Formats: sequence, structure tokens, C-alpha cells
Amino acid sequence: MPTRRECANAIRTLSIDAIEQARSGHPGAPLGMADMAEALWRHGFKHNPADPMWVDRDRFVLSNGHASMLLYAVLHLTGYDLPLKEVKNFRQLGSATPGHPERGQTPGIEMSTGPLGQGIASAVGLALAEALLASRFNKPGHIIVDHHTYAFCGDGCLMEGVSHEACSLAGTWGLGKLIVLYDANSISIDGNIEPWFSEDVGKRFQAYHWQVIGPIDGHDFHALDEALQSAREERAKPSLIICKTHIGYASPKEDQAASHGAPLGAEAITQTKASLGCKDEPFAVPENVYLAWDSRKEGKAAQDAWQSAFSAYQKVYPELAEEFARRMRGDLPKNWPEIARKILKAATAGQKATATRVLSRIVLETLVKDLPEMIGGSADLSSSVGTQVACSVPFDPASCTGNYIFYGVREFAMGAIMNGLAAHGGFFPYGGTFLAFSDQAKNAIRLAAMMGLREVWLFSHDSIGVGEDGPTHQPIEQLASLRLTPNLNVWRPCDGTETAIAWQSAVEAHKPSCLVLSRQNLPQLEHPASQIADIRKGAYVIKDCPGEPELIFIATGSEVDLALKAAEILVLRNHRVRVVSMPCAEVFAEQDAAWRESVLPGHIGLRVAIEAGAPDYWYKYAGSKGLVLGIKSFGLSAPGVRLYDYFGLTAEKIADKALDLLSNAQAGQ
Amino acid sequence: MPTRRECANAIRTLSIDAIEQARSGHPGAPLGMADMAEALWRHGFKHNPADPMWVDRDRFVLSNGHASMLLYAVLHLTGYDLPLKEVKNFRQLGSATPGHPERGQTPGIEMSTGPLGQGIASAVGLALAEALLASRFNKPGHIIVDHHTYAFCGDGCLMEGVSHEACSLAGTWGLGKLIVLYDANSISIDGNIEPWFSEDVGKRFQAYHWQVIGPIDGHDFHALDEALQSAREERAKPSLIICKTHIGYASPKEDQAASHGAPLGAEAITQTKASLGCKDEPFAVPENVYLAWDSRKEGKAAQDAWQSAFSAYQKVYPELAEEFARRMRGDLPKNWPEIARKILKAATAGQKATATRVLSRIVLETLVKDLPEMIGGSADLSSSVGTQVACSVPFDPASCTGNYIFYGVREFAMGAIMNGLAAHGGFFPYGGTFLAFSDQAKNAIRLAAMMGLREVWLFSHDSIGVGEDGPTHQPIEQLASLRLTPNLNVWRPCDGTETAIAWQSAVEAHKPSCLVLSRQNLPQLEHPASQIADIRKGAYVIKDCPGEPELIFIATGSEVDLALKAAEILVLRNHRVRVVSMPCAEVFAEQDAAWRESVLPGHIGLRVAIEAGAPDYWYKYAGSKGLVLGIKSFGLSAPGVRLYDYFGLTAEKIADKALDLLSNAQAGQ
Repeated sequence: MPTRRECANAIRTLSIDAIEQARSGHPGAPLGMADMAEALWRHGFKHNPADPMWVDRDRFVLSNGHASMLLYAVLHLTGYDLPLKEVKNFRQLGSATPGHPERGQTPGIEMSTGPLGQGIASAVGLALAEALLASRFNKPGHIIVDHHTYAFCGDGCLMEGVSHEACSLAGTWGLGKLIVLYDANSISIDGNIEPWFSEDVGKRFQAYHWQVIGPIDGHDFHALDEALQSAREERAKPSLIICKTHIGYASPKEDQAASHGAPLGAEAITQTKASLGCKDEPFAVPENVYLAWDSRKEGKAAQDAWQSAFSAYQKVYPELAEEFARRMRGDLPKNWPEIARKILKAATAGQKATATRVLSRIVLETLVKDLPEMIGGSADLSSSVGTQVACSVPFDPASCTGNYIFYGVREFAMGAIMNGLAAHGGFFPYGGTFLAFSDQAKNAIRLAAMMGLREVWLFSHDSIGVGEDGPTHQPIEQLASLRLTPNLNVWRPCDGTETAIAWQSAVEAHKPSCLVLSRQNLPQLEHPASQIADIRKGAYVIKDCPGEPELIFIATGSEVDLALKAAEILVLRNHRVRVVSMPCAEVFAEQDAAWRESVLPGHIGLRVAIEAGAPDYWYKYAGSKGLVLGIKSFGLSAPGVRLYDYFGLTAEKIADKALDLLSNAQAGQ
Repeated sequence: MPTRRECANAIRTLSIDAIEQARSGHPGAPLGMADMAEALWRHGFKHNPADPMWVDRDRFVLSNGHASMLLYAVLHLTGYDLPLKEVKNFRQLGSATPGHPERGQTPGIEMSTGPLGQGIASAVGLALAEALLASRFNKPGHIIVDHHTYAFCGDGCLMEGVSHEACSLAGTWGLGKLIVLYDANSISIDGNIEPWFSEDVGKRFQAYHWQVIGPIDGHDFHALDEALQSAREERAKPSLIICKTHIGYASPKEDQAASHGAPLGAEAITQTKASLGCKDEPFAVPENVYLAWDSRKEGKAAQDAWQSAFSAYQKVYPELAEEFARRMRGDLPKNWPEIARKILKAATAGQKATATRVLSRIVLETLVKDLPEMIGGSADLSSSVGTQVACSVPFDPASCTGNYIFYGVREFAMGAIMNGLAAHGGFFPYGGTFLAFSDQAKNAIRLAAMMGLREVWLFSHDSIGVGEDGPTHQPIEQLASLRLTPNLNVWRPCDGTETAIAWQSAVEAHKPSCLVLSRQNLPQLEHPASQIADIRKGAYVIKDCPGEPELIFIATGSEVDLALKAAEILVLRNHRVRVVSMPCAEVFAEQDAAWRESVLPGHIGLRVAIEAGAPDYWYKYAGSKGLVLGIKSFGLSAPGVRLYDYFGLTAEKIADKALDLLSNAQAGQ
């Protein structure tokens, strides 16, 4: 049997060799954390390399994602489908070993990490998911959900605000099965952290009601074992294990920031391996070390045992078992088409003008009842955004029950935790705040899009329509910023019908969706039955004219009604006008050319795009001959109706601009 | 003399009356914090209502900005140029009393606040500015900089991650003249905070090395006085005074979230005033209360005393005095044109291909030496971004000297602190991180733009050119998102010349600027002397053809060289091609129509815009007949050169697309 250090050293040598071969990467952290990884992954980490998707596996998040090679080495050594060829292909196009861990690219990677702090925040979401599923599905004598969530994080992670936000919540929630190993090496990229990170981290986490263990020597296996045992024994509080380590351990750059982000170089690698007592040969792992790491047999046994337990559970609780399996697969319930019809009916039942934030809440009344996988919440704006509904049950840490999370004023943590909930499986998270504050959560939304996680962001107060709260609360550039984010659907519905369709699309999507909702009331528009299917295509003709249109209005959300009214004015002047509602530009762009041409015929160049936000995005559809009516400056504090007038967004003013466009075009012909 | 409670009650009644009149606003916090405001503003707060810009005034930030009416009431009562008419005009178009405090709209408002947590973070910047100026300019027997920075904040502010980031730094820096009064009313919008904010705030701030005072009764004037005195006496640590208060004090909605964000209503106002012992008449303030609040005489005396001290200082240290005055006015030194020439020369001296992040560093070597008001820093990426230069002196908390801040991995706090430094006066801050992480700082950049603060963001690693670090580190939507933010200049230079001009523009601007910089090397391009002035116009013809162009390439940054090479290929095929470099679209949009037409003639519709980022922004310039070559998905982990090829951004592939466009256009004619 090799020693534990020898096992850890296999992580070290694979990491520095792969980084050297790639001529790019971060050797310091894998060298420093290898002993922590050995202590965790070879002693009690529950997983089956043959089935990385086994639902009751322990979850692991590498919050300091730049240490990716450490994790790839572990996955390779324990027997995941990650052959040495892939390790040698580190950071190359199409390899399974990208520069930072990417969910979906590598078996065994739970979360895409890299932006510091977000990993630990998402780990809070993973642990919350476990606690909720356990309380929902476990029965006396039948435990089918029982796993830990582990995270490694570094100093940088704990500097980032999102780590504070999320860890404060984890402590408040008492997530006892969350265990964070903090790689306290006192070095960040700019050097020794003393001048910028002097806080007492242990005291801070105690203030958040965590169990704080250590500081321990992160290279002392015995201390690591003891710490992990204490952490696993504590079920009422999350645990932080402070591990003092040496970045760049055993290399000539040990304890230096220089070891962080560049290959060591051949000479230093030779020295490091000599110091570790390893053979100076690239990618060499002794056979007995491979054997010691191989977790396949143990993993299969663990999953088999779980499978037996689940089979027994199925016999006693067949319906619960089926529901659990459905939720973990991420399938919708069989009656989903019926639910979809119900939400459409509910959202269009009222006759009075209604804010789309309220219509979204009406939709949620049905959805939350019929989709138990939904878990909602808000960053302290529950009733303003309309996220909390009649059958929302606030999360209760004592019983670990509930389907609604009060995140407090923490937009970024809300996003990262939603990502953890979605990534765990079994949940379909939604969360709400004002559109202006999407800024704070933006990078979590970006990661959700990158990972293709199904979740819904409800962004209300979506324009100057916010009114008196003024420019800090009035989004301008946010709508376009979200639209430009890849793999994200941004819906801005104009009424109840579009709100219901937007929600339907978001539930069915395999990616995150944003619903951008008005604070102010909007009229329910008329939609012939045939239009319902068209709305799902992202843009459609909501009002047409006899014959060929001279001019096309394009609008979204609260501005669709303005466009319709402006069109009426033009019709009175004997113009032929089409109005296009485009609730989701991304979905429209995915339609076939025939549909896109049918909505926006290429030869009709006179187009007026209208949206109460930054205009530049809309030139894509308004074209060279067209006009975009938007808002180029920040907003102002005043009643919303006054602001719409001030910024030229009234039916009359829009019609005037359109008439100018028409007469200029005629003059130009 | 009225009692102190009577003085505080004037804030309360003005606030609830103004909110009622506006039919919009947040009465709960002004009712709750009025006693704190009395204790601070009537007892030792150094200011002169007649001169809100007096340089040695105490600074005050209302981090919970929704309590704006409290601050307007204080400014009105103490004698600022904010007459009752403006108070009555609360939240109306064009009033000096917008819904949230806005710097520049109201005398006495230091910072725009509203997004929670950012105010306290900016207060850290204000306090840092004071400490730095004091150590730089004060002389024995001649103290010309000596003021406090105070902030009010609420529970919500302390939930937000940015408050953690900034307060950790403030403790590390030992900013003894920063005093935060925490309005601990235990209520946020969603109700009693216990389920989402249970952390031990005092312990947390002790972990950050703050002096923590309290909890005290925030309605007990004696306790407030004592706490403020202790805070003022502590010069080695910032102080947090935890004030237990009652939101909605004395109203029927006291201690209820319902008092937070909606007018009380006429009946409740009557009850509240009865409970306070105030007359039930709108906007009534007893004359003796006005007299008790009036700070004009005391304020004038304070400023006169300071003016005498400054006059004495001027006599002994005339050059220092002039320098201090120049910096506080925000003027550039007289030799600025010469400095500007120097940076252009330095940035274009090299012949080898160089990354623009390195060229920016070369510019900084000169700028930091010649502009003592510059204060740089980075969120732990000093050498990667190139923010730290030879004459950068790391900030030393013991002596309060230095011109370089290690912010740690805290992009958002960096932004908010830069805003505080810029708002204080005397400083021109710059800060750096990777463009992908601009997300984390976005809302602070937005507030800088809203306030028109002069500061520079250096965003390096600006595209897939980042390479192996992969999609989490490769910006896609960030460039356009920043461009769409109002009042923000976004420069993406292509070489040394453009980098120097971008810096020059940023120094001269009265707003924030972003410099978006490459990680990878870029060739120095040829610029005839006449082009230098053109670059300053944001876009210009970098390469033209004889006769009228058939096609125009538009590119920025690293893609300009690609466009030039693609153009060469087209020229070999006998096409007439123009290449436009557009380093700053915002500045170009501000030019007169003649310039814009001369660069991009309206009748030349065949245009190809090239940028290694989200394409949609560029339809504005590519037009209906044009083409945009960008990146619609997230990036990948691989060497940057491979990625440029993979995403079709090579000279050959661009030329092919352009040739297709040309032949299609010919076929279509």
C-alpha cells in the first residue's frame, strides 16, 4: 500500500505535468490542496465513478475553480471516465478537461466554477436541496436521500461578497451537511494577503452560526481526518474547516504567489518531484497508487446498497418513489399540458388592466400548486415582485420543509443558490427582484446560462414605469444586457396571454429564462386563438393591416399597447401599419427563416422599434431605414406616466415620429 | 428651546407629509432614524449649509437611500438651499428632492444611494480619501484636512455582499474617522428579518477589526451622544454603532414592514402626529424648532475658522496649498498637454507586438508619476491587468500614505470605494480587473455613470483571446452591456496610439471611462499624424481606398488588425475597401453629423462589423445590408489563437464572408 502522502502526490504530479504540457494553468492550488483532497475523497466521500449521476452521491464543488487539475486528477484516479489522454489534453479545444471546471463537459463536475466565491454559494444551494429532499422523501426506516455537500474554497472566495451573503444564509438555515474546507494559504494573486484580507475568518463564520474547526495543518492527514469527522458529526450547523496549507507545496515556489497561475517550468518540476520523492517522468502514477485511489468497487457497492434501499422504498411508497424519480430526472408531470392550459386561462381571466408582475403571480398560484419541484424566493421583494403565492410555504430550518426562500437583500447569493438547487436535481427554482438589481446577480445568471440550468428569474419594475423611485431603480441597459447573454431567454410580456406563454416556455426550456415584468398596469390585449401558438415563436404580428404594410411597429412589454395606439393614429391618416410584438427576441431568432420573414418581411424597411430602455439593441430589427425609440440617458424621479411623456413614449409622440419617417421616405423616393 | 425629541419630530412630520403629498415614498425609516439624525446633525456634525462644497466638511452617506426624506428634512431644517417648496415637491419631475438621494440634484447630497449596501461601501472610499489627504497635506500646526465620514445604514445594507467586502477593507485599513450608524430595526421589506438575517452583526464587525458600540436604544439621545463620542474618540478603528430602533416610530404601523414603502395615509398621519405631540397640519414646523435646527451661523463660523487656518497654511506652504486647491477643484495640472504628449510617445515607442493591457501600463508609468491625484488599484489582478507601476506606492494604513490599493478579490467594493474616492474630491481613481468580472462591479459602475464621477476602469482579458481559462473568464456580453450604460465611455483600443488617446480622453472626461484591453499581443498600426486627432472622435478611417469604397469594415481593439488584413485580401481581388476603427462608439455618437457621415457614409450599405463579443450591438452600424461577425455563444477553453479560428475570426474567414456579401450584393442588383 502506498502512503497517503504518496496518494496525494499523484494529484500533485498529474497536475503540474498537465499544466506544463498545456503551457497554461494554476499549479499552486493543486500542490497545496492535494492532501485535503486525499483526506476527503479517499476517506468517506460517497460516490460511484461509474455513475456520476447517481442521485444520492455526495456533491463536491471546487469553488476555487482555477485548481481544476486537482479535481481532474482525483476524477481520473478514482476511476471516472476521464482517461489519462484527457488529462494530457488539459485546456485544449474539445477536451474533457477545460481550464476551469465546466458542468456538462466532464463526468463528476457538479458546478462550473472560476468566478471566485460563487462555488461556495452554489454549494449552499446544493446542501439546501439535499435537506429539502430528505425531509420530503425520507420515511422512517427508508432513507433514500442522505448525502453531504463538500466545497473547497480559497482566500479569494472568502473575500468575495457573495460568499458572505450565502454563508450567512447557510448558518441561519443550519445546513448541517454542508462542509467547507478552506484552503487558507494566505496567498492570493497579488501576494501575501495580510494587507487586504486581515479579517478573523473563524470569528466571522461563528457570527454566521457555523461550526468553525481549526485552523489545522492542511498537510496533516490525522488532523484532516479528525476535522472531517467533527464536521460530519455536527448536523445542526454547517462546518468550516480552516486548513493552513502551503501554496505550491514542495515546489521551488512554495508559499509564493508566483506558483499560482503559471506552469512551474521543467526544472522546477524536476525539483518538485524530487522533493516529493516521485519519479521524474511526465504523467507517471505508480500502479499501487492507482490501485489505492480506485474507488469503483467501493462506489458500486455504495450505489448498490442505495439501490436496494430505494427498491424497498418503491415497494412501500410507490407513488413517492415515482415522484422522486421524476423530479430527479427533471421531467414535467404528465398533466403538464393541462397545467399549461390552466395558467393561460388564469392569466387572461381578468378584464381590468393589470401589471404583468401581478399576472405572473396569478400564473404562479397554479404552477406552485401543481409543480412540487418549484422552489421560489425573492431578495426581500416578495410582494413587490409577486413571487410568494397562496401555497408558498416559507422554508423552515427546523423541519427542513417549505417551498419558498426569503433570501434577504442578497441578489447574487440568491442566484448562486438557485444554481445549486437546479444543479442538484429535484428542483425548479425561481427567484425575483427588480430588473435594475439584476446587475448584482448578473454573473450568477451568466453561469446558469453557461450550465444550461433550468430556472426562472422574475424581474419586475422593468422600466421608467417604476416612477418615483428614480434612476437607481429604473433599468435602462439591463434588458439588452440580459438579451446579449448567450443561452438565456428573456421574455418581456405585454399582457396576461404573453405572461402565461412566457412562463410556459420557461418551464419547458432547458436553460434559464428571465421574465421582465411591469410595475404598472397594462391592458389585456385581444388575441385570436390562432395567435397563441405564434406567441411561442418569440415574435408575431399582433395587429396587421389590409394589403402590404408601409410601416412596422416592433415593441415589447408595456410598449406594445403604445404601439397599437400609435398604429391607430396612423390608420386614421390612411396608412397601412403592422404591429409586431416581440416578447422574446432569442426565441424569435431561433425560428426558421420563413417565420421570421413572415413577421418582418425583409423588403419593408420602414420600421419603428419601441422599448423603454437602451435603444441600441433594436437596430438589429429596425434596420438602416428604421427608427428606434428608447431611452439613452438614465431615468428620473417622477410619476411613471409623466416620465413616459417626458421621454417621448406616448402614442401621439410615437405616431408623430412614425409619420415623419413615412413622409421622409416618400420625399426620398 | 424645543426638546431634542421635538427637533427630531420635525424630521418625522416633514417626511410623512412629503411622502403623503407625493403619494409615494418610504416613511418607516425616517420615522425610525429621526432621533439618530438629531443626535448626529445637531451635535458635532461639521458643515456649512451655505457652502455644501466646503472641502473640509464632514461627509454623510445615507446608505439606506429610501429614507431620502429624512435627509431632505435635515438639509432643509439646517439651512441648506432646499426650501419648503422643494420638500413639498418630493419625487416630482425636476424637483431637488428625487425619490432616492442623487448627487448633483440636491445641495448637501454626497452620494447617490438606493441600491442597498453600496452607500456604506462608498463611505469607506470617502473616509479613505480623507485619511490620504490628511497625511499628504497636513503639517505640524497646520491641519487643513480633518473631517469625519458618517453613514446611516439599515439591515438590508448589511445583508448585501458589498457591505461585507468594503467593511472588511475598512477594518484592515483602520479608518478611524469612519462612523456607521446601523439602524437595527429588525424589519426589512419581507417582514421581521429573523428568518433571513440572524447573523451576529457585532461579532462580524469585530472580526473585521471594527470598534462595535451597542446595541444601544436608537431613540435614547443620551445613549446616542455617548456612542458618537466613543466613536469619535477611537482613531485606530472604524466604528459601528448598533442602534435598535422602531421602524415607523409612533405611527400605527410601528415595527411593521407595512410602514416601509407606502404613504401612511391621512388617518394614520393624524394619529402619528398626535402620538408625537405635533400639530396636525401639513408641513408645519414650529418656529423655535426651525431656530434650534438652523446651523448656518455655526457652520459659517466653522468654515471661517478653517479658512483662516488655510490662509495661514497658504503663507507657509504656498505650493502645497495650490496643489491641494487644484486637486479639490478637480483641475488637471497646467502641464497636462505635455503629459498627454508624453504618454502618446511612450505608448508608441515599441516596435514589437504588445498587448494593450501592457500599453496601458506603460501609459500609467507616466500618468501616475505626473498626476498625484491618481489612486490606483486592482481586485487582486495587479500585474495581470497592469495597474501597478513603478511609482505605485501600496497604501500603508499606519502612515496613511500611498497611491495604490490592493482591494483583494472584491470587484464590487473596489467600484463603490472608487466612487467614494472620486466623490470626495482630490482623487482620480482607477481600478482593474478582467472584463468578465465587470459583472460583479456593474452596479457601482452604473452609479459612477449616474453621478458623473471621473474614474477609469481597466478591463483586460477582453475576449476569447483570454484562451485557456475558458468561458467563465471570456467576456461575451460585457462589452455591449457597458456600452449601453448611459454616460459611460467605453474605449477598446487596437494599439499603443489608441491606448494613449483612450487614456487621454479618460483623464479629460467628466464621467467614468472603461478601457477594454487585450491579454494577447497586438501589432502597432500605422497612423499618419493627421489621424491622431481623428482617434479622439471615437471612430475614424484607419485605412481607405482610392475612390468610393464598395465595402466598409468596422472593428475595435484586437479585431482592427484582422480587419486590415481581411481588407488586404479583398484589395488583391480588386475591391475597394475602407477600414474604420471605432475605439469608442459613445464618443463617436457625440460627434457632429458631418464627421459621422465622413467616416460611415450613409449610402454605403455593405458593411462588415467585427468584434470578438456579442454581435447584436453592431447592427446599429452594420445596417440592414451589412454583416456582423461576432460570437453568439459562450467561449471555450483552448489557446486563444485556436479560438479565433474556431469562431471564424481570421483574416481569411472574414475576407470570405465579405466577398460573399459583395457577390450577393452584385447578384441582387
